[in-house]
Amino acid sequence: MSDNCQALTCLAGIRIVDFTQFEAGPSCTEALAWLGAEVVKIENPKTGDPARRVLPGKNPEDPWYFHMFNANKKSLTVDLKSPRGLDLVKAMLKKADVTIENMAPGTIERLGLGYDEVRKLNPGIIYCSIQGFGTGSPYEKGLAFDMIAQAAGGMVSVTGEPGRQPVKPGPSFGDTGTGMLMAITILGTLMERQRTGVGRRLQVAMQDAMLHYMRTCFAVTARTGKAAERRGGKSVMGANAPSGLYQCKPYGPNDWIYVMTSRSNPEHWARLMKLFGREELIDDPRFATGPARLEHEAEVDAIVTEWTSKHTKEEAMALISGVGVPAGAAFDTLELQNDASFEKRGIMQVMEHASGPFKMPAWPVRVDGKPPRLLPSPLLGEHTADVLNTWLGLDAAEVAKLKGDGVV
Amino acid sequence: MSDNCQALTCLAGIRIVDFTQFEAGPSCTEALAWLGAEVVKIENPKTGDPARRVLPGKNPEDPWYFHMFNANKKSLTVDLKSPRGLDLVKAMLKKADVTIENMAPGTIERLGLGYDEVRKLNPGIIYCSIQGFGTGSPYEKGLAFDMIAQAAGGMVSVTGEPGRQPVKPGPSFGDTGTGMLMAITILGTLMERQRTGVGRRLQVAMQDAMLHYMRTCFAVTARTGKAAERRGGKSVMGANAPSGLYQCKPYGPNDWIYVMTSRSNPEHWARLMKLFGREELIDDPRFATGPARLEHEAEVDAIVTEWTSKHTKEEAMALISGVGVPAGAAFDTLELQNDASFEKRGIMQVMEHASGPFKMPAWPVRVDGKPPRLLPSPLLGEHTADVLNTWLGLDAAEVAKLKGDGVV
Repeated sequence: MSDNCQALTCLAGIRIVDFTQFEAGPSCTEALAWLGAEVVKIENPKTGDPARRVLPGKNPEDPWYFHMFNANKKSLTVDLKSPRGLDLVKAMLKKADVTIENMAPGTIERLGLGYDEVRKLNPGIIYCSIQGFGTGSPYEKGLAFDMIAQAAGGMVSVTGEPGRQPVKPGPSFGDTGTGMLMAITILGTLMERQRTGVGRRLQVAMQDAMLHYMRTCFAVTARTGKAAERRGGKSVMGANAPSGLYQCKPYGPNDWIYVMTSRSNPEHWARLMKLFGREELIDDPRFATGPARLEHEAEVDAIVTEWTSKHTKEEAMALISGVGVPAGAAFDTLELQNDASFEKRGIMQVMEHASGPFKMPAWPVRVDGKPPRLLPSPLLGEHTADVLNTWLGLDAAEVAKLKGDGVV
Repeated sequence: MSDNCQALTCLAGIRIVDFTQFEAGPSCTEALAWLGAEVVKIENPKTGDPARRVLPGKNPEDPWYFHMFNANKKSLTVDLKSPRGLDLVKAMLKKADVTIENMAPGTIERLGLGYDEVRKLNPGIIYCSIQGFGTGSPYEKGLAFDMIAQAAGGMVSVTGEPGRQPVKPGPSFGDTGTGMLMAITILGTLMERQRTGVGRRLQVAMQDAMLHYMRTCFAVTARTGKAAERRGGKSVMGANAPSGLYQCKPYGPNDWIYVMTSRSNPEHWARLMKLFGREELIDDPRFATGPARLEHEAEVDAIVTEWTSKHTKEEAMALISGVGVPAGAAFDTLELQNDASFEKRGIMQVMEHASGPFKMPAWPVRVDGKPPRLLPSPLLGEHTADVLNTWLGLDAAEVAKLKGDGVV
């Protein structure tokens, strides 16, 4: 093991039967796997999670998207439409602490693994469903993917340039943002269950989950009575100047820096003007107070751009940040991927996968100084024999028979 | 209590001394408060959390931004720069399960409440810090707010229209996105501590946390070897057509719908063309396969827009979703705020605050059918006497003396 990470066993002994696919569900169970839970991914023997075919690498067995959301898990293949396969999974559910699914509405019930069935098998289980839209919503039967949730949850409406069409935030907040809220609730109810012994049913809808991340925008609406607007590079709150994206040398697509002065700290403006060699502007009546700067925002932005455009974003970030003003270069994914500092600190780690090494973001919270260790995402069915043995006591001959019969 | 929610006690007995401010830290402890933890917000007696002055309502005592991130918490005011105040907080830390701060780098140590100090007082405590940039990063001393994290973590670079300047995703993912990862890790280490009795130090940097939400974009970079690009309304993966934002009647700023057809489900295209009354296009060689549609994406988009532009986004969503194709109208914050379905289901709840009722998104995960109950965010120092009594046994006279002396 590299010394930038550690094996964490916070959730040792927690067993999760994981029916999830794509990202919203897998991001949730992966967080629990990084913290030491045993996550067994239940996959169709023929094709597995459809995410195994999203963004394949140089060969189809190297699905990079899949790696990202299935690290540190086990894979068990089983045909849920075969009665013997279903029985195997039911036997596992009797021993599980948590089960989770994010199938299309109605699918898990048609498989005979709905909440009412599973609760009878194991009254202590935490049974979790991630849907696109909430039960009782007018759209409750609607299918969703990340972008559908981001549109229906308001995110798209507040993202883009003023007066132009909306855009989708690039990252997959609709999926992983939902998965994180479910992971928190699973852990909270697991702690409760240690006292009560009683299971819970957890449900989250992706549209509903987006509202949680939109609260600043809702606060704007509370104040204005209007829909929060698209403000390009500016904050949706619009309470400070300077605050925004400013262009840097050599003027490529991502040569921008975010500079922000806080209303809570009037020193920011003075520090910035000293850095720029523009001390005369500190007390200039056009700029001396927060409201004055907001009123002259175009001039303020021009003053900042005049300086940033003479520097690269890295230089500008080091200099502005160095005088105590919040600044962030608009790093792109290639720059971040190649920044050795992330790997040194264990924030990025290399997955030693059968298809080759793969560097990716790991769980970014450090526990006593180090993030948890990244382990490979499983090959399809890699742990079938292992799990059937350790969970259900099946021996090699029994597993071979099930394989021969196409059950696993 | 309204019957759309319930008091949850999953984390009953968990005591949190909360030094956080603004959003990244408060969003974390609020999640734990919704699940039943006792979160005591430590605030300066004069001004409190600076978030109390962000987006004030009709009067300055009604800070809507503050409501959003401090529901269900208690507030204790104490002057941390007075020796008696510091002693009170240290006595509380001895009894706490978790403490958390997101001050500027070095501040908590200067107050005498750094990790090394607190661990001596309480070796079983989970001690949490949220920073802008990670310890060991070249920017480790840099200040950060939401937008700085979104820029430095790559989100800005992938958001915006192709060939134009980047924009900031509107929602505050930089803050709340970070807070959620810390909440998961706190709960995982609390479960571990029930076995070991030993505390942990948790640290997360907002820049690092953003990488977690950027993994789809990193998978694109792994495939192309280039920075992931801005694609407007399209997915950063760009693997399907149709997939994107399409304009609807009456052509206002948010009259758009996201329509997505999945590569994993070739039926989506046929369903859509049947709905549009364009069955002849299902097997048209320009559109019959996923790769063919991608090659003719502009024509595909024109076909979809021709239909969506004759419908409102609500009609279009009901119709497209109704035939089993993922669709999401680009709802804005006013539409979402006024959609009664959220309140009926407890996803939005009304905070009964001293300054008046305030409707806001609550914790969106349902536990046995209902989300947790939303309780008011605290007035500054509202629970000082209560907490000093229940945690430390101080009586009313002792608290009055401390108040008179300006300590609390």
